[in-house]
Amino acid sequence: MPEITADQHKIIDAAFRRFTKFGPENTTMAQIAKDLGYSRTFLYYYFPDKESIFKMALIRCANKYFDSLQTELKRKITGLKALENGIRTKIFCAKDFQVIGVYTNVILYRMLMEDPDLLYIFSTEQKLLIELIKKGKKDGSIGKCNPVKTAQQITEGLNGYMSFGLRRLEMTGKRNPQEIDGLFKKQLEYGLLLVSAIRK
Amino acid sequence: MPEITADQHKIIDAAFRRFTKFGPENTTMAQIAKDLGYSRTFLYYYFPDKESIFKMALIRCANKYFDSLQTELKRKITGLKALENGIRTKIFCAKDFQVIGVYTNVILYRMLMEDPDLLYIFSTEQKLLIELIKKGKKDGSIGKCNPVKTAQQITEGLNGYMSFGLRRLEMTGKRNPQEIDGLFKKQLEYGLLLVSAIRK
Repeated sequence: MPEITADQHKIIDAAFRRFTKFGPENTTMAQIAKDLGYSRTFLYYYFPDKESIFKMALIRCANKYFDSLQTELKRKITGLKALENGIRTKIFCAKDFQVIGVYTNVILYRMLMEDPDLLYIFSTEQKLLIELIKKGKKDGSIGKCNPVKTAQQITEGLNGYMSFGLRRLEMTGKRNPQEIDGLFKKQLEYGLLLVSAIRK
Repeated sequence: MPEITADQHKIIDAAFRRFTKFGPENTTMAQIAKDLGYSRTFLYYYFPDKESIFKMALIRCANKYFDSLQTELKRKITGLKALENGIRTKIFCAKDFQVIGVYTNVILYRMLMEDPDLLYIFSTEQKLLIELIKKGKKDGSIGKCNPVKTAQQITEGLNGYMSFGLRRLEMTGKRNPQEIDGLFKKQLEYGLLLVSAIRK
């Protein structure tokens, strides 16, 4: 997990403001530099292209999610409650990416699935969810289940739910911040429903 | 719900054998007619194009699913058990369509979402799932929940899980009957996990 510098944080934020408003395909590196009052040379020093900004944003988002899962693991609450909190963070972290179409943009999707620097995202998420489920089984808040299989079901179930809803918005030309807000609320509810399936 | 004739059943089955083996895009009406020993004129009398065969296949599949939900509603079992059985049928019915890529083929997906003759599929599924959930609440097998919202969560959750898994197979060039078999087993397990979330 690479360290992200203050300048990189600023660039990611500026890029996402543009991505959200105009779409990644209608955003240029020159515009991002201009928004920040940076020279293009300065911007290129950090990021060679939009894809690399996007990739670092994914890493930042994933690390925030994993920090939250680590924190939940250590808290004095039941494993079930900790898992619920973790799932809330996942959905919250994913929101920015949904606005810009990550699940339905083939290039971004392929990057997420295939870039070697991003593969740790899936394995780390699985590892931490498995630990949370084990914690819950130990304290009796989670019933009989196979932690490895269940962690995978939760991840794939949520990712599927998120991408399906987003895809429908895109197909009907309605991917906008208001509609995403509506999806986001439904995703939170679905996440909690899914977790409640393994309650004792 | 239009009546499907014996000839139409035969044509749908022959078309799906070809769709499954070679893909809908590599199948012609002439080949389907030849497989059946029919003249093209005879085939066109029933179906003007591949899309109309596909549409009738969707209707046939949906009606089978709805018949099964109706039967489950009347059986002397708990609402939860009846819902589990219904979900199994849904996943079973969807299998043929996954093999030919329904969730990830834009034309087929749009047809499913927008064709006025197919809109009854979504509304009928919702109506029957709501009745099953109400049955379960009444007999105490299903806990406190909003039947309308829950029916929607179950449908969207399952559709999302199915399309996400299928999309991944397509992206990695692995959509074949063996991989679909693996997905199918996972879908059944996920369906039962999801339903168990509303158990009392």
